Amino acid sequence: MAQLKGRVTIPTDSNMKEEIKKVIDTWGADALRDCDGTKLSQDIVDLGVKLYSTYLTVRSDQQWARENQDELQQLYLMSEPVISKSEELEISILKGYYGKQFRIDTVHDEKEWWEVIDRTTGKIISTDNWSFNKEKGIVKVKNILPWHEYTVNFLVYMIWDPTQMYNHITNDWGDKSHEMPYDCRQPKTNKHVKEALKKWMEENPEVNVVRFTTFFYHFTLCFNEVAKEKFVDWFGYSSSVSPLALKQFEEEKGYKLRSEHIVDKGYYNSPFRVPSKEFKDYVDFQSKYVAGLAKELVDICHQNGKEAMMFLGDNWIGTEPYGKYFPSIGLDAVVGSVGNGATMRMIADIPGVKYTEGRFLPYFFPDVFNETGDPVGEARQNWLQARRAILRKPLDRIGYGGYLGLAVKFPEFVKQVENICDEFRNIHETIKETKAYTAPFKVGVLNCWGKLRSWQTNQVAHALWYKEIYSYIGIIECLSGMPVDVEFISFDDILENGIPTDLGVIINAGDAYTAWSGGEYWKNPKILSTVREWVTNGGGFIGVGEPTAIHHENRFFQLADVLGVDKEVGFSLSTRKYNELEPYHFITEEIGEASIDFGEGMKGVFGTGDNYQVIRKDFGNEACLNNKFRGDTTFAVNTYGKGRSVYFAGFPYSPQNCRLLLRAIYWAVNKEEDMKNWYVTNIYTECAAFLEVNKMAVINNTEEERTTDVYMNGENVKTLTLAPMEIKWLDIN
Amino acid sequence: MAQLKGRVTIPTDSNMKEEIKKVIDTWGADALRDCDGTKLSQDIVDLGVKLYSTYLTVRSDQQWARENQDELQQLYLMSEPVISKSEELEISILKGYYGKQFRIDTVHDEKEWWEVIDRTTGKIISTDNWSFNKEKGIVKVKNILPWHEYTVNFLVYMIWDPTQMYNHITNDWGDKSHEMPYDCRQPKTNKHVKEALKKWMEENPEVNVVRFTTFFYHFTLCFNEVAKEKFVDWFGYSSSVSPLALKQFEEEKGYKLRSEHIVDKGYYNSPFRVPSKEFKDYVDFQSKYVAGLAKELVDICHQNGKEAMMFLGDNWIGTEPYGKYFPSIGLDAVVGSVGNGATMRMIADIPGVKYTEGRFLPYFFPDVFNETGDPVGEARQNWLQARRAILRKPLDRIGYGGYLGLAVKFPEFVKQVENICDEFRNIHETIKETKAYTAPFKVGVLNCWGKLRSWQTNQVAHALWYKEIYSYIGIIECLSGMPVDVEFISFDDILENGIPTDLGVIINAGDAYTAWSGGEYWKNPKILSTVREWVTNGGGFIGVGEPTAIHHENRFFQLADVLGVDKEVGFSLSTRKYNELEPYHFITEEIGEASIDFGEGMKGVFGTGDNYQVIRKDFGNEACLNNKFRGDTTFAVNTYGKGRSVYFAGFPYSPQNCRLLLRAIYWAVNKEEDMKNWYVTNIYTECAAFLEVNKMAVINNTEEERTTDVYMNGENVKTLTLAPMEIKWLDIN
Repeated sequence: MAQLKGRVTIPTDSNMKEEIKKVIDTWGADALRDCDGTKLSQDIVDLGVKLYSTYLTVRSDQQWARENQDELQQLYLMSEPVISKSEELEISILKGYYGKQFRIDTVHDEKEWWEVIDRTTGKIISTDNWSFNKEKGIVKVKNILPWHEYTVNFLVYMIWDPTQMYNHITNDWGDKSHEMPYDCRQPKTNKHVKEALKKWMEENPEVNVVRFTTFFYHFTLCFNEVAKEKFVDWFGYSSSVSPLALKQFEEEKGYKLRSEHIVDKGYYNSPFRVPSKEFKDYVDFQSKYVAGLAKELVDICHQNGKEAMMFLGDNWIGTEPYGKYFPSIGLDAVVGSVGNGATMRMIADIPGVKYTEGRFLPYFFPDVFNETGDPVGEARQNWLQARRAILRKPLDRIGYGGYLGLAVKFPEFVKQVENICDEFRNIHETIKETKAYTAPFKVGVLNCWGKLRSWQTNQVAHALWYKEIYSYIGIIECLSGMPVDVEFISFDDILENGIPTDLGVIINAGDAYTAWSGGEYWKNPKILSTVREWVTNGGGFIGVGEPTAIHHENRFFQLADVLGVDKEVGFSLSTRKYNELEPYHFITEEIGEASIDFGEGMKGVFGTGDNYQVIRKDFGNEACLNNKFRGDTTFAVNTYGKGRSVYFAGFPYSPQNCRLLLRAIYWAVNKEEDMKNWYVTNIYTECAAFLEVNKMAVINNTEEERTTDVYMNGENVKTLTLAPMEIKWLDIN
Repeated sequence: MAQLKGRVTIPTDSNMKEEIKKVIDTWGADALRDCDGTKLSQDIVDLGVKLYSTYLTVRSDQQWARENQDELQQLYLMSEPVISKSEELEISILKGYYGKQFRIDTVHDEKEWWEVIDRTTGKIISTDNWSFNKEKGIVKVKNILPWHEYTVNFLVYMIWDPTQMYNHITNDWGDKSHEMPYDCRQPKTNKHVKEALKKWMEENPEVNVVRFTTFFYHFTLCFNEVAKEKFVDWFGYSSSVSPLALKQFEEEKGYKLRSEHIVDKGYYNSPFRVPSKEFKDYVDFQSKYVAGLAKELVDICHQNGKEAMMFLGDNWIGTEPYGKYFPSIGLDAVVGSVGNGATMRMIADIPGVKYTEGRFLPYFFPDVFNETGDPVGEARQNWLQARRAILRKPLDRIGYGGYLGLAVKFPEFVKQVENICDEFRNIHETIKETKAYTAPFKVGVLNCWGKLRSWQTNQVAHALWYKEIYSYIGIIECLSGMPVDVEFISFDDILENGIPTDLGVIINAGDAYTAWSGGEYWKNPKILSTVREWVTNGGGFIGVGEPTAIHHENRFFQLADVLGVDKEVGFSLSTRKYNELEPYHFITEEIGEASIDFGEGMKGVFGTGDNYQVIRKDFGNEACLNNKFRGDTTFAVNTYGKGRSVYFAGFPYSPQNCRLLLRAIYWAVNKEEDMKNWYVTNIYTECAAFLEVNKMAVINNTEEERTTDVYMNGENVKTLTLAPMEIKWLDIN
């Protein structure tokens, strides 16, 4: 039986009223939600909890979809590149795509909306030199250069909603009909969705919270010809286009977009691409529209006495929660999936809503809730990674999704979640809406996206593991639970406003030429000069992987002078590097010469200048070990005027790396002596001091017992032993 | 006692006539040479062998150097980059360089010959805005942008010959005077070196071979302020410049070179840089001059009845042995150090000389010839790696260098070299100047340098190990002893003449953007089209590391279509890659699923298109192993029209990789059935068939016994067991 009540949402299930009641009591839940395949049944409306109902804005009315196929959603696709062997070429444009997902747009004039491009030269083929055969789905190109590579940017209609398609195929739903998403920007549909919502209001009086899943445009998700994922970009705007939108864009922004501005060589403006002005304009254009219409729907909810909650996912394109239009939607709440600390912060930090809710893992699905699965272990890991972030900026509510009937078959899991719910409520109860102590300076994460993509850096799909990103994601994952305030800033911010005065440290983390590192921005003298001056005057700079990287003149890392390291890309092999290892430093005080996890690491990095110290190296192989100067630098520091910098070859999340980053930040900002104000010495523990309520939380981030010294107000006040996963609340005197 | 005599040169030593006589007998030597620190003494002129004498063209007369300091050699240096903190800056231009090696040129007008460059923008600072303080060695710059980085390209005189400096410092020669190199292009010196040689002729009648070490300009070798190597480029032309040379360049080529064309952002035109037109012109200009003057010196030798031999090293700049001017020098011979098979071929293949000689390892120096050293082991390894290449194109002579007195203290070593000398002479005796069977197609190695840098690809310093290159050097090292004829071709060759008709396979191996991979050339549609058409029609393409790489449009590997692989650089992470491992292939027939050494490997490579097969992957870590689609492709093949391609992530030298490359070549060219014409099945053995003399050599490339099947004329004729290191000569019936 829960000690405290509330702040917890649970999923419903069919014909389980008694079990639901029991779980409500055990977990102290105060809200029930439906989910895919379950419905809020009438028998639960009297349970005395809030009821959330999923609302699918653009695919709930399939009759509408079928009858208004000219208003289905559209997207731009690029045909698979084909090499021409002569001066003529036939391109089967839908080759490689899933035929059941797309229908080629034969409504709008292809000569106006499509582009055939010679990818060998990047040049557009004149519309006189190609024609489209509607019957065969083939573009015939003539008068072209042989042995060049050609593609077609073309428009399709989306004839199967990606989320339904995904669930349909994954769960083998057989002949269940395919849902087609309609486009709210189209005049008839625009009117219809508002009317439909109003009607739904009347039909669902028992619902307290309308959980929009979501608004209007799905992130980009394309399947291939064997019905598997071909392209998935959780941030992708490609599925939000239409000739109408492009015309309205032209009216609003004063210039015409090309299909190529959306297709972007087939990269479709992945967040890893340094965004073009055109794409940034398009994001702004679409976000403004989405916010405007979403507000109308939210208003309808409010007029009917219901709250409006947005699910951060699925059809969330255009609702950028850190964008300037988002608060104007007037949502009551946002709910999202919590994969770790960073995704927790992504939800919890969203401005302009009354409350936030995190859906924790595991999802109550048969893939985990079976004999070989480990739902308890998953719940613990999820909670451990989220909890440290919750102490920084708590979600208002937590919850679970899936089929409740599955979960209740696992009593240990039920017990574990009970503990989690109690611990979560106890945090709120203790801190009383106050904020934990943070350093007297902010940490800025610098990339091309800045605030717009807060807590979303270096991500491909939501919280999924990729070999190419885990070595960077550790940065925001560590930061999510650290006693520092984090600001996400963009290069454009620096160009327009300089570096915010409250920043103590700037972090630049990513692969060369990506939007996270910065690419072309690092050739901009104003960026370079601004950062150099700022560091010289005492700023701290932390680079991870390939920071400030673009090959230009005599450097690969353009701020090699600030970083004290550069990367060998082959041109300066003739210059000898005398890098010797000096493993001891303030940053490594607690770990000594222990090995550090740099993830994928980085080849060819070496110390340069007069003021660097190489703290770790990857010697790689024996031939390297024979020579103390050999090996790739994986961790180095540098002094630069009054400022300092730190370089890491990679930075996956781990408790050890959390501590290293905290120390790196305090060292970089030249405030080592302030670090131990509120501090625990064991790297597997962390603390959060709530000075306004005189409470300090000490958490054990592992499933083993840990002992740590505790510093309060700069004094080592006691030694504490924490049980596995324990959170202890200490009084501050 | 040697069974055969001749073809062997040994070093002399002081007061050791009897020992020398014994070694001459044991090794069958027919020539004696002096070396650093030893002189040909009068008592050995009657030993009945040829006498080689080292001749230092540009530093033997130090009185001349002292008296003509306006004609000392010069070079361009770039000052270490400095960040300006205001609109003015003082740059101490020689900072970071070794003061005893260089003297700033205060003779020529700095405003004419130097450049101050803003490296943040790449722009030249107007000469009005800087001045040079001769006394302080400082360049003062004004009216500049703060927080930009500035450098000065400036001229210095070389006041210490790099080779003498290196030996002086390494061997602690104390107050032995510093030798200064003089510049033969200067009018007085030009005349002097010829007169000095004539005089030397008269004074050294006993010498048979003048061993030039070498001609006029040293490769670039700069020391830093603590007298250690700062910059070393065995191919570097920076030390061959002077205002006079630059003026003559302008007259000859019709345009003026900038200092920056030599300084090249501080990379000094490393061979890894895609060479500019200007630098290629300069190499041509300097090579032409060097060849002309060298011919005059060679003529003097001939007029005095002596042979002229060039040492391929030290002051060899301008003598590019595969350049168009080299044969015109009229040298009798070239001698060079043999570090492995590729350096052996670099010497043995040189055109336009009567004979070639390889100096084998180890050098008779105390660093190896001591109680802990392993001279026998080094000699064996050196011979094993060179022998397989000798069977393809033998050197005419071999030899050793250093102090003979050291070697004779190691009787096992003396015995080992006796075996080597006998085996070497026996090869010549058996093959009677005929050439071993090679495949009926050539293998082309494609890079920016082509023929000019035959057998010199991907090298930094001569035969030295670098982490960044060993994964590429394996290609030429394997090729050096393989039964294929190799042609080094450049992108310019393809642009001018297309692909040679006798090529069966093209290999492109190197890091992205380097001259070995090709950089900007891979954006040239003519290169792409030519290669695509050629492969489509049956050509074979082998890529190693980052072949055809430059980010452009939708590709990183521009010939991803041909290769069947591309490299993920972050922009297409949203595109799913379904690469499954299929380890069995014709190429891996003899090794099955055994692991393969790809050296440093390559991150992010994945199969693409419809026709690839991924043969090996690097799964990297556990998170990768959980998913069969994850991991970096390290070895893949592709079919492309009638052609085929093979990709390797890296290719260090090993017997296994030799075999893989042979099989990759035969597979790529679609002639698998011809591979076993003359063949041995054990991968630690190789064979060379000399059809004109009906002999086939089978060699054991290891120090263990090996058994192999032997194919002759396509038939498996016998099983053979070879002793460690053995060479067996079989009769061909």
